[in-house]
Amino acid sequence: MNASQLKSLLDHVASGQVDTGEAERQLLDALRERPFENLGFARIDHHRAVRQGFPEVVLGLGKTPAQVAAIAQEIAGRGSTLLVTRAPLEMYEAVKAVLRSAIYLPTARLITLQQQDIARGAGQILVVAAGTSDLPVAEEAACTAELMGNDVERLYDVGVAGIHRLLNERRRLADARVIIVVAGMEGALPSVVSGLVSVPVIAVPTSIGYGASFGGIAALLGMLNSCASGVSVVNIDNGFGAANIASLINHL
Amino acid sequence: MNASQLKSLLDHVASGQVDTGEAERQLLDALRERPFENLGFARIDHHRAVRQGFPEVVLGLGKTPAQVAAIAQEIAGRGSTLLVTRAPLEMYEAVKAVLRSAIYLPTARLITLQQQDIARGAGQILVVAAGTSDLPVAEEAACTAELMGNDVERLYDVGVAGIHRLLNERRRLADARVIIVVAGMEGALPSVVSGLVSVPVIAVPTSIGYGASFGGIAALLGMLNSCASGVSVVNIDNGFGAANIASLINHL
Amino acid sequence: MNASQLKSLLDHVASGQVDTGEAERQLLDALRERPFENLGFARIDHHRAVRQGFPEVVLGLGKTPAQVAAIAQEIAGRGSTLLVTRAPLEMYEAVKAVLRSAIYLPTARLITLQQQDIARGAGQILVVAAGTSDLPVAEEAACTAELMGNDVERLYDVGVAGIHRLLNERRRLADARVIIVVAGMEGALPSVVSGLVSVPVIAVPTSIGYGASFGGIAALLGMLNSCASGVSVVNIDNGFGAANIASLINHL
Amino acid sequence: MNASQLKSLLDHVASGQVDTGEAERQLLDALRERPFENLGFARIDHHRAVRQGFPEVVLGLGKTPAQVAAIAQEIAGRGSTLLVTRAPLEMYEAVKAVLRSAIYLPTARLITLQQQDIARGAGQILVVAAGTSDLPVAEEAACTAELMGNDVERLYDVGVAGIHRLLNERRRLADARVIIVVAGMEGALPSVVSGLVSVPVIAVPTSIGYGASFGGIAALLGMLNSCASGVSVVNIDNGFGAANIASLINHL
Amino acid sequence: MNASQLKSLLDHVASGQVDTGEAERQLLDALRERPFENLGFARIDHHRAVRQGFPEVVLGLGKTPAQVAAIAQEIAGRGSTLLVTRAPLEMYEAVKAVLRSAIYLPTARLITLQQQDIARGAGQILVVAAGTSDLPVAEEAACTAELMGNDVERLYDVGVAGIHRLLNERRRLADARVIIVVAGMEGALPSVVSGLVSVPVIAVPTSIGYGASFGGIAALLGMLNSCASGVSVVNIDNGFGAANIASLINHL
Amino acid sequence: MNASQLKSLLDHVASGQVDTGEAERQLLDALRERPFENLGFARIDHHRAVRQGFPEVVLGLGKTPAQVAAIAQEIAGRGSTLLVTRAPLEMYEAVKAVLRSAIYLPTARLITLQQQDIARGAGQILVVAAGTSDLPVAEEAACTAELMGNDVERLYDVGVAGIHRLLNERRRLADARVIIVVAGMEGALPSVVSGLVSVPVIAVPTSIGYGASFGGIAALLGMLNSCASGVSVVNIDNGFGAANIASLINHL
Amino acid sequence: MNASQLKSLLDHVASGQVDTGEAERQLLDALRERPFENLGFARIDHHRAVRQGFPEVVLGLGKTPAQVAAIAQEIAGRGSTLLVTRAPLEMYEAVKAVLRSAIYLPTARLITLQQQDIARGAGQILVVAAGTSDLPVAEEAACTAELMGNDVERLYDVGVAGIHRLLNERRRLADARVIIVVAGMEGALPSVVSGLVSVPVIAVPTSIGYGASFGGIAALLGMLNSCASGVSVVNIDNGFGAANIASLINHL
Amino acid sequence: MNASQLKSLLDHVASGQVDTGEAERQLLDALRERPFENLGFARIDHHRAVRQGFPEVVLGLGKTPAQVAAIAQEIAGRGSTLLVTRAPLEMYEAVKAVLRSAIYLPTARLITLQQQDIARGAGQILVVAAGTSDLPVAEEAACTAELMGNDVERLYDVGVAGIHRLLNERRRLADARVIIVVAGMEGALPSVVSGLVSVPVIAVPTSIGYGASFGGIAALLGMLNSCASGVSVVNIDNGFGAANIASLINHL
Repeated sequence: MNASQLKSLLDHVASGQVDTGEAERQLLDALRERPFENLGFARIDHHRAVRQGFPEVVLGLGKTPAQVAAIAQEIAGRGSTLLVTRAPLEMYEAVKAVLRSAIYLPTARLITLQQQDIARGAGQILVVAAGTSDLPVAEEAACTAELMGNDVERLYDVGVAGIHRLLNERRRLADARVIIVVAGMEGALPSVVSGLVSVPVIAVPTSIGYGASFGGIAALLGMLNSCASGVSVVNIDNGFGAANIASLINHL
Repeated sequence: MNASQLKSLLDHVASGQVDTGEAERQLLDALRERPFENLGFARIDHHRAVRQGFPEVVLGLGKTPAQVAAIAQEIAGRGSTLLVTRAPLEMYEAVKAVLRSAIYLPTARLITLQQQDIARGAGQILVVAAGTSDLPVAEEAACTAELMGNDVERLYDVGVAGIHRLLNERRRLADARVIIVVAGMEGALPSVVSGLVSVPVIAVPTSIGYGASFGGIAALLGMLNSCASGVSVVNIDNGFGAANIASLINHL
Repeated sequence: MNASQLKSLLDHVASGQVDTGEAERQLLDALRERPFENLGFARIDHHRAVRQGFPEVVLGLGKTPAQVAAIAQEIAGRGSTLLVTRAPLEMYEAVKAVLRSAIYLPTARLITLQQQDIARGAGQILVVAAGTSDLPVAEEAACTAELMGNDVERLYDVGVAGIHRLLNERRRLADARVIIVVAGMEGALPSVVSGLVSVPVIAVPTSIGYGASFGGIAALLGMLNSCASGVSVVNIDNGFGAANIASLINHL
Repeated sequence: MNASQLKSLLDHVASGQVDTGEAERQLLDALRERPFENLGFARIDHHRAVRQGFPEVVLGLGKTPAQVAAIAQEIAGRGSTLLVTRAPLEMYEAVKAVLRSAIYLPTARLITLQQQDIARGAGQILVVAAGTSDLPVAEEAACTAELMGNDVERLYDVGVAGIHRLLNERRRLADARVIIVVAGMEGALPSVVSGLVSVPVIAVPTSIGYGASFGGIAALLGMLNSCASGVSVVNIDNGFGAANIASLINHL
Repeated sequence: MNASQLKSLLDHVASGQVDTGEAERQLLDALRERPFENLGFARIDHHRAVRQGFPEVVLGLGKTPAQVAAIAQEIAGRGSTLLVTRAPLEMYEAVKAVLRSAIYLPTARLITLQQQDIARGAGQILVVAAGTSDLPVAEEAACTAELMGNDVERLYDVGVAGIHRLLNERRRLADARVIIVVAGMEGALPSVVSGLVSVPVIAVPTSIGYGASFGGIAALLGMLNSCASGVSVVNIDNGFGAANIASLINHL
Repeated sequence: MNASQLKSLLDHVASGQVDTGEAERQLLDALRERPFENLGFARIDHHRAVRQGFPEVVLGLGKTPAQVAAIAQEIAGRGSTLLVTRAPLEMYEAVKAVLRSAIYLPTARLITLQQQDIARGAGQILVVAAGTSDLPVAEEAACTAELMGNDVERLYDVGVAGIHRLLNERRRLADARVIIVVAGMEGALPSVVSGLVSVPVIAVPTSIGYGASFGGIAALLGMLNSCASGVSVVNIDNGFGAANIASLINHL
Repeated sequence: MNASQLKSLLDHVASGQVDTGEAERQLLDALRERPFENLGFARIDHHRAVRQGFPEVVLGLGKTPAQVAAIAQEIAGRGSTLLVTRAPLEMYEAVKAVLRSAIYLPTARLITLQQQDIARGAGQILVVAAGTSDLPVAEEAACTAELMGNDVERLYDVGVAGIHRLLNERRRLADARVIIVVAGMEGALPSVVSGLVSVPVIAVPTSIGYGASFGGIAALLGMLNSCASGVSVVNIDNGFGAANIASLINHL
Repeated sequence: MNASQLKSLLDHVASGQVDTGEAERQLLDALRERPFENLGFARIDHHRAVRQGFPEVVLGLGKTPAQVAAIAQEIAGRGSTLLVTRAPLEMYEAVKAVLRSAIYLPTARLITLQQQDIARGAGQILVVAAGTSDLPVAEEAACTAELMGNDVERLYDVGVAGIHRLLNERRRLADARVIIVVAGMEGALPSVVSGLVSVPVIAVPTSIGYGASFGGIAALLGMLNSCASGVSVVNIDNGFGAANIASLINHL
């Protein structure tokens, strides 16, 4: 029973559509469910949608396809929406074998199966990417934000070395309620974007670059040291995390 | 002319309290002001309050007391609210010599002079600190957030090694619209807090610790790698930045 | 001749079951054995079980399958229990070719052949793992501790972002005499666990994570900077080492 | 009410020395005490001695003398034993002003006031130091372990460059139940010590050294990579932490 | 004899103003001078002006005032222009004691004594600084470039968080033949500047910042990873080096 | 319409070869072209040749062959010269499938198609490489500089451990207007070269080396700390960037 | 003409076996040879044997098999001894195709072809290795030292965790004139060895280890910080370099 | 009794100057002396001169003046030569108070008192320094080497940016039996020196530099990655260690 099911039940009780005996029975059933399902190698948090507005998301990285398939079956079996991140194709195939209708977003490396209505965010989330090579991370962010109930706009290949590409799009920057900025190399784009808007900017460094980019450290440090004070930062390549935070903000 | 002054003028025009000729004159005057005042060593952004809701804030670190006093005089002279961060006592003395009514918050190391009405944020910002040693950073965050028009609550010395100190305060966690978590050493507190709430968490690593804390790197890395997906991070000891972002969110 | 064989011999002498002439002969034989067998590329320490309670353990990493097979044959040929860590499947195959009864634990990547009675530890060793991806390291620890004569309990997927999963298992935490905590990412779990118990906690950072986890550095630093004072740390992914220390403690 | 006071009360009830009414009253009083005393800037854990066998220890580093004096007064006022680590002389003076009988151990930089009987550890803790410069950390460990109820032996200036200094003391190594090894520079001593004994070794890297010792990183890495498998490690210069763990082990 | 003195002599010979006997005598005298004057602790390169267009410059850092005074006397005694960088006030005082007419530029921390005509560079060198705190490094660059015979323009406090401050000055960017960009924190300014011009940009990271700026590493990495391909980089805080390179380019 | 086409058109107008009506039409057509072509995943900057003297260059690294082929077609379709860097063979094959006449330089890993006249640089660019292993980076620099309109000389395998190999070639060093020095390992060559010449030196660290070369960090740090003041540095392995800067200088 | 050929020629002149005309002719021929043979991608130093006692050694790493084969042919064609380090098998095959008698040492990864008499070193070089996994580096050192004319002894698998394995071999340590110590992990062995002898110790860190060994950094730092003052260090895995230095010393 | 005293005694026995009874008595006395004098905080190794040719040297760094004075008195009291390194002036004053004739070398920061004849090294040790700022480390090396019985030459301020300063001194390079090269910044000098000679080069990185020199890391890495194969390296600023190794080599 998630938050909207609960609200609906109480509304029905208040309006007399459901009597208190039936309501009591349903609530007891819900409470009887174990909040964590222990698969031995994993504990699935079935109350997360209640607590945090979206069901538990599975990080594919470091798990075997078989483990993810078992977790996915458990989550989807309860009627929850499934989201697996960092999923290679073979992981999708293992999931698809047990969940026929699961779909795969290859650039974003996401497996998903939408089963619940998700509350809609209040405004628009804009995902900005500095370069073409940052697209996998940007798409992970954009698709995740969409799945979490947000309107998402994309603005790609507007790195700071050609600042007019960004300035030409100021209107779209101004329309966003939250902005995710994805950049590798020197990671300067969030500073410039944040200086142009008055909404929170979530910066995602990417591991794109070579030599002294050190797998994204240069971009990460650039973003942490942003001279613009509206920028907060997530882990390197963590498009999912940025989308999750942006969605939390957009649902306030 | 800041955003609320502009809105007020337009309202007066609409209501007939101000005629269009007068309105035009005032608007032209405002546009005639140079948006950046160039002091040679610094350019002060007088339109920032219009663009971003709060006047330009002065980072005291790396500037001389004389430079900060001159900048402060320029900002306050336009009727804007003054905020100087990372200000040692001697910097305050230099500012006070030119701005009698400026006040100093020693734990937070802030100089301030409130002169404008600031729009109020929608909910409560909770500042959580792991240990007593993190207070200077936590207070920089809390005082900044207050100056930016937010209700601020404080919850200090609730580090993860005594988890019940935090769990005892779940009610206060639940009441916040945005949470700032300040922690040094292993920086684990944001992960735990984020797992207990459904609002955005801004994590501030502090340079508190010794040995392998490396001046806050351990806490910074801990927060960037948080297994809780609602955490974004600012620079080490950057209480001001965290408050600024929290305030942007709380004003959405 | 290991410690228990020696004790048994002396007991038999004391009780008259073995006469002193026979005992002298056996002891001289034992002393005549070379304590180190030099294979040229490796020196095998045959007295280690006497000195440290468990025969020499072979680190498979960096050795060729042929080298490990030769070492294994030498160890097992003396009647000692064999334990090879970090063993890929092909290494097991090389060992199996010379030691038919050797077995392989694939998740833990261990080759083993139990041949001796090992003294039992006094209490229970609990192996706690933060996430599903930490299982290979957790299993290396759990299986090693079992081979070294300890009762081992497992508690997996109880990371700090869902703190109730851990708090629900406080009874099992309280039952342990030593606790091994395995965690990647921010490595915060040992701090929380240590705050809940009064027994030593051995923390094992894992290389699980991405971006700023830097192959386990973030977890390692988090554990070294633990605000809980009962935590000591071993190398990244060193499940074996943690088990060895926990076993030494549990045999006190 | 700590663990031994509780046990004593129950014994008296059982033997009829205290009637149940009186016992009930005393227990209710104890439960009525707030487990955490909130000083605003610090929460003092008064139940820690019950949970972990020793009252909460105060880390002086990063706190002001006034804060530490207030915390010390609160702890000592409940009749608990006081221990403040990393205390400079001026901090001691602030504490002494409110707690006349507090004493100061200058090499170990500890402030202490013993007020409770502490349970004795089962065996001997040996503190080994590689060089003369490591003494402050070694003494922090040794004095802490003594305060926590352990017999402590010291073995100083036995670094690996003159291996016979160590080998000459093998008897004392063999007598210990737990060994703390303190070393800076290359941090090699724990590996050698661990190879000579069959008890757990807690290694403490120190910041002693220069150049590529990087404030203790070289020693820390050396210890984490120890080829001896009975070594676990605490933070650089963390003599207190090592003693706390050693004491936990020695009290098993 | 520097390059222009040589050229002048040869011109005079060609024009008959100086006869070949006199020219021969002068050239032999010049060749007889030792190209390096060995002071024991320093070897002064008196032919550097011939080889590289400007006399040897003295890095004050790491030398004692007495050493610098002796070197300065040697350089100035040959009629060469003196330039000492990274000079604290007390170093200037030691130099002034032996060279009355030496002057001191305190913000730039330079000691200088102009004695020779320096060839003029072909165009303008523009020194751009991101923030007020970067001024010491920017002034070291600007004053050095002036001393080396270049027209220098300054453009300060135009960091990327307020991009219009920079765009408003595009005309001045366009007028430069070489641009030096000085920036701390995230070091993003050179990328933006380079994207707006078609001349070489020399980037100077500064140690301005805190926390994860790591004394200028963040800015340095940002600049090395610039997505604009016209940026080359010098050491952190190396204003002198940037000016020297810019001057070499401007003299082509 | 690039800079030379524009100049030519205006010359023709001035000389009467083209009438103003026709000129106006051509200029309007040029202005009507969108300066950035947005392919969704990439925005191609068609005015870059006007602004910076050479069309936009495509960094192959991190892009898919299909993306690069689409971008290449767009660039070449406008009649611009194509340059793709860091291109593996399969990327070339994808480009060749759509642009028959594109050629591939395998050592330099460049795809190119020359379609425009490029302005010639004023002097010679010398590319110096320390060792045979540095050739791929040196060739990337040399071929890029040639494509950008410069005379290029090569001087390879003249590392500092055999200093006479370099000194024997002083004549060629003296002939250059700009020098690119490519070196891995300790990266000492630029310091020595810069001390021998009076022209700017662009240093390129390479990732050649092993162990403590850390993928080029040792060379990078060596170059940034050069005791010769005429050296500026680009990213590790960034032969293209060095050539671009050298070309900008050589076109002054 | 190498040093011994030169000495022999002069002896023959002195003894009258060769007349001065013939000697002059031979010397002129030798001087006429170009000291560096320029293959374009490599310059081969044919006088190195004269200057440094052994012909130029080829580092295979980073070169193509074809390049190495060409260089090998050039070196061997002059009658010099060939030594290629870091040579994979396919490189050997390319060399063997042009130099039939070249041989390959697979553990040491060396290609060699002995063609000259090398002067013999004065004493014994002992190569000590901590573990079995260090053998490739130890063998690179041992085989190189043998090729350079030294008597070499090997002492393998004597790591510090079992100190008696080393102490049992003190006689062999005492017999050496120079000692090379090869160790990974914590790199403690050189300190212990150096404390037992009075000859120079060359320490070679290896990349053996995992986790916080960071590819040999832990061992490198351990060796640089050795508390024994007779230890100098070469690059990680640089067995060749250690042997070269040891041989230089042994030939003094 | 040191090695020369022992040899002298045996010679006297052989020649009949001392009878065997007396010799036996003296030898027993010597053996009765404890090889390590345990001062509690330090163990002084009185047999070191026998084992390693020079008495134990005291590292002043990290010890208190009082500790060093006590150690110095113990060493000098046995008639051994005293050497204290890294000694600030106040340490010297403490030593002088107990050892009137101890002398202080301020640039080298050494306290010394020569009391024994030290065996002379076979050749000359040359100490080369790159810059004036490297002198404290160079003098530590040079003075130490002199005290250890070696002829020492100095060659200072010959950094690679003015390569002719070094090449002019090739004769002095050629005269040395061992060369110590001291350099900060990029640390390139050892590579160049080693390429010019055929004797071992001991490289000492110094902490001289700023910015990306990282306290000597740049120089250290440069030296470890030297492309010249005759270079081994000691810790940053470790002039003493370099001298000790050079002396060991020079005494072979």
